[in-house]
Amino acid sequence: MASAFRPQQARIPPALAIPIPLLTKAIGNLFCFIYRFKIGLCQLTVTPDKKRNIKHARKAIKEAAQKGAQLVVLPEIWNSPYSNDSFPVYAEDIDAGHDASPSTAMLAEVSGQLKITIVGGSIPERCGDKLYNTCCIFGTDGKLKAKHRKIHLFDIDIPGKLTFMESKTFTAGETPTIVDTDVGRIGIGICHDICFEELAMIYASRGAHLICYPGAFNMTSGPSHWELLQRSRAADNQLYVATCSPARDAGAGYIAWGHSTLVGPFGDVIATTEHDEDIIIAEIDYSILEQRRTRIPLAKQRRGDLYRLVDIRRLDAHCRL
Amino acid sequence: MASAFRPQQARIPPALAIPIPLLTKAIGNLFCFIYRFKIGLCQLTVTPDKKRNIKHARKAIKEAAQKGAQLVVLPEIWNSPYSNDSFPVYAEDIDAGHDASPSTAMLAEVSGQLKITIVGGSIPERCGDKLYNTCCIFGTDGKLKAKHRKIHLFDIDIPGKLTFMESKTFTAGETPTIVDTDVGRIGIGICHDICFEELAMIYASRGAHLICYPGAFNMTSGPSHWELLQRSRAADNQLYVATCSPARDAGAGYIAWGHSTLVGPFGDVIATTEHDEDIIIAEIDYSILEQRRTRIPLAKQRRGDLYRLVDIRRLDAHCRL
Repeated sequence: MASAFRPQQARIPPALAIPIPLLTKAIGNLFCFIYRFKIGLCQLTVTPDKKRNIKHARKAIKEAAQKGAQLVVLPEIWNSPYSNDSFPVYAEDIDAGHDASPSTAMLAEVSGQLKITIVGGSIPERCGDKLYNTCCIFGTDGKLKAKHRKIHLFDIDIPGKLTFMESKTFTAGETPTIVDTDVGRIGIGICHDICFEELAMIYASRGAHLICYPGAFNMTSGPSHWELLQRSRAADNQLYVATCSPARDAGAGYIAWGHSTLVGPFGDVIATTEHDEDIIIAEIDYSILEQRRTRIPLAKQRRGDLYRLVDIRRLDAHCRL
Repeated sequence: MASAFRPQQARIPPALAIPIPLLTKAIGNLFCFIYRFKIGLCQLTVTPDKKRNIKHARKAIKEAAQKGAQLVVLPEIWNSPYSNDSFPVYAEDIDAGHDASPSTAMLAEVSGQLKITIVGGSIPERCGDKLYNTCCIFGTDGKLKAKHRKIHLFDIDIPGKLTFMESKTFTAGETPTIVDTDVGRIGIGICHDICFEELAMIYASRGAHLICYPGAFNMTSGPSHWELLQRSRAADNQLYVATCSPARDAGAGYIAWGHSTLVGPFGDVIATTEHDEDIIIAEIDYSILEQRRTRIPLAKQRRGDLYRLVDIRRLDAHCRL
């Protein structure tokens, strides 16, 4: 419908429709699209022992898969303590792989073995002389499908409460990351990335079904903003949001809030947990995305004559999504 | 600070700094800027009797002013039942004023008399052969400072729960509205306008201290989204958000959720109420805006190299704010 309000121009380039999920199932002679599947959020304890962390994550992923999860999400920085001192020590060369990156080698192995998709939380990545806070996404074939380097680094200074400067060690990523998997089109953000609504808006306009945010909010931002931001990103963009935090370690230098959560496209908390180690198994149903968007047609009501959000990278011809 | 991330370009035109509030106070020989003042949110009962509604609103405004409010906010559609049948009947010619608009004539009189700023909720406005859902803002001199016509009309269809098509009677407004008052720079949205994060982002980039949303969320959207949207607009944009709803009338055709609220720039609920008639008096302190933005410098962390929000009207040379 043509409109003087130019709703399609509220996103530059214009928003894409949600793709039909890639997951199919043979029923007799027919192949059907599957809209429903289980997600597993592994809220892991993290220790200074990297080998233990990797072994522990492997066990949790297997447990989630045994409980039916076809998509498993890990926490931010799950192989290392969360501190600027630790990041360089625990960092791995992901591109070199194998022995140079035992954490992602495990994810590759286990995703292929179990035939599941893994949004591998994040680990410190070493690339040349730079360090990144990086999330790897593995497909059901065990292959690395995409790598997201945290775009918005966590630099905060609240005197007497919390001061943390991630940019002291990490370099910020250069691009949003959205990936087609067997369980839908997934946008990735890491922790502080969730504070920037533009990133979620861009992913929604690229047709994301789900945004996964591995994150480690703290004891200040956690109670005040963690759930609020997840719910508003989901409601504003009418898609699923999944978050995964490390479990809380009250003795750690940086204390995580926990509360990993799955939020539905109406901003509804579908499943969550407290701060202890836990594996959340919950169901995602993409068929309700279209229903929500039909009933409350925000995309058709936007005013492209008054505001426009430009997705710079997608304007680049080299960027498919 | 120059940055490859071009944070200033995340808003086109670049974001303005928050202005110093216009309100001053003589202390001895000195004039001081005042950052703190009281806001009054009048959650009014609305009946089919327009004269009663006007009289009742006048009384509530006076009571709020007596309790110290220097800014008073009224609900959406406070002079008429909320229905497509009623809007044409209760509509007033605001531009003609006086007898043609008894509702806004009262607001003009009482704001000048009490020397307060009024964000006059909204009333159905007749202009030529069109009807608008319009908010009038009156200054301490009793003069009309600005008029906001609801930009995003409330068209929704949830079978079995709620169907409402505001666009059957109303025409949508053509521009965002932000106004410098004695109690700061205020952006205006009406009800469904709050669902569009772009509007709040534009107001923030124009230097708003506060966004006022007169609104009448219902028994479906109220419990699920009313507080969520207010808190996220405030937290994302690091400014104050005030909402004002009609009181609930369980016998009305459209049942309002109530819960008028003041939210601080950290997404914190400062004051709220239930669904009965009430006058909320709460304190606003603009000095904490700068503090929040220094501690969590979202504006400096945005990635103008990856996304840009364009404020179309402000690109127009004729538009100062």
